[in-house]
Amino acid sequence: MRLATIRTATGTRAVRVDTTTAVETGETDLRALLERPDWAEHAANAAGPTHPVDGLDYAPLVPAPEKIICVGLNYRDHILEMGNEPPAYPTLFAKYPPALVGAHDDIVLPAVSDKIDYEAELTVVIGRPVRHADAEQAAAAIAGYTILNDVSVRDWQNRTKQFLQGKTFEHSTPLGPVLVTPDELPEGGWEISSVLDGEVMQHSTTAELVFGPVDLVRYLSTIMTLNPGDVIATGTPGGVGHARKPPRYLTDGATLVTAIAGIGETRNTCRKEKIPA
Amino acid sequence: MRLATIRTATGTRAVRVDTTTAVETGETDLRALLERPDWAEHAANAAGPTHPVDGLDYAPLVPAPEKIICVGLNYRDHILEMGNEPPAYPTLFAKYPPALVGAHDDIVLPAVSDKIDYEAELTVVIGRPVRHADAEQAAAAIAGYTILNDVSVRDWQNRTKQFLQGKTFEHSTPLGPVLVTPDELPEGGWEISSVLDGEVMQHSTTAELVFGPVDLVRYLSTIMTLNPGDVIATGTPGGVGHARKPPRYLTDGATLVTAIAGIGETRNTCRKEKIPA
Repeated sequence: MRLATIRTATGTRAVRVDTTTAVETGETDLRALLERPDWAEHAANAAGPTHPVDGLDYAPLVPAPEKIICVGLNYRDHILEMGNEPPAYPTLFAKYPPALVGAHDDIVLPAVSDKIDYEAELTVVIGRPVRHADAEQAAAAIAGYTILNDVSVRDWQNRTKQFLQGKTFEHSTPLGPVLVTPDELPEGGWEISSVLDGEVMQHSTTAELVFGPVDLVRYLSTIMTLNPGDVIATGTPGGVGHARKPPRYLTDGATLVTAIAGIGETRNTCRKEKIPA
Repeated sequence: MRLATIRTATGTRAVRVDTTTAVETGETDLRALLERPDWAEHAANAAGPTHPVDGLDYAPLVPAPEKIICVGLNYRDHILEMGNEPPAYPTLFAKYPPALVGAHDDIVLPAVSDKIDYEAELTVVIGRPVRHADAEQAAAAIAGYTILNDVSVRDWQNRTKQFLQGKTFEHSTPLGPVLVTPDELPEGGWEISSVLDGEVMQHSTTAELVFGPVDLVRYLSTIMTLNPGDVIATGTPGGVGHARKPPRYLTDGATLVTAIAGIGETRNTCRKEKIPA
């Protein structure tokens, strides 16, 4: 099953996305849907107003998650590219909800930087509350998978030792287009890529993950309760622009496509921020 | 004016806290109150159900903020204690809402650590949306001030270079008891302390802040829109337990009082987590 949050003339709606038609479930967004303990059955049986899949206006998949948790240094190839050793523990940092944009929205490049980079990431969405999970409980808490591009303002990310300020610029981070439930995806590694203006910049497989989705849910659930709609971006593979020689950054008008096999793609145009006078 | 979020038999309520009586404003919590553009007038004129101030059950001042933004290394004395240089930019990291507890709730000491530390912090609460603020706009966006203790799980904080995982354990972080509007506070530095089992562990003044509240709101508003109810914890002074020789940590049954002159205090008992079998 594929689920999304779309914009309509009367606000956002959670939908089940079928082959040619999206069907409203009755909730205003995916988080509200996932907060129903019966969300899977409810969404499967939804028979609300419908929309053609062509031309859907995707909101951020979860417009206002309680948590956006990001993992750094989690692909073997990216760890080597950045000159680091494989870690004993996951590196974790946050974004705040205003960072998010929809799957086809513009990415805003902040006026204060010209070192803005892309990071394609397989992303977990939580479907039930979970704390102190074992592997089975962790797997059961995963509602499904989506795509996030952890767009990063490298000079701000490196102003201090804490990444947060370079990771949470407003309207920087595509999330979507859809959540795909685990039963629709094959076992094992999924191809992941970012393509900038038609050029493949990152191309790897989620088989390169050091800490996989179940590992991450278990680890995080030691710290706190994960709740429906929480977003866990699992880290990015090699090929980021900041590590290239010469570096390659996002520029005004550029098109960034982030794709994961079996899930789909986000396709966003980069637009330089214009600060109102 | 003093505002709070209290628990009642029928859920949380925003209240104006007068000398002996708390008066309900009609909103369910402080964030909902601050989301009203007329919140100050509305709260000043509130005449809802009342509660005696003695015995109020304080919820986290903002139970579910969109953002909890924490500042590290921001007191001249604490910077020296940790062996660091005064910074050019604020160090920023996050907590998630489940970290919060009320002003008199138990602090949960996670079972996975015995290196849990206190950090008294002057904390800003945002009262109107603000982006790309100048100093005047930043000052006007501050609804008021409160107290947060940025309880920190030091071994987890230092597992990787990113602090987040040691900063956001569930039910670790007192926030409250009240928001005090700026007009009720004197100009200049306010005395701040943490007292552990009756012993003064931190004692400084907010005059030691490297980046003050207005500086921080300006800086953060370059990155993203700050919204009503957002919480900005401005960093902690010297005297933390992890930097003491020998170190001093929070233990089961300990009482932690965090106080700021003119605002009040949080008073919490530490309780070791019992993980359900």
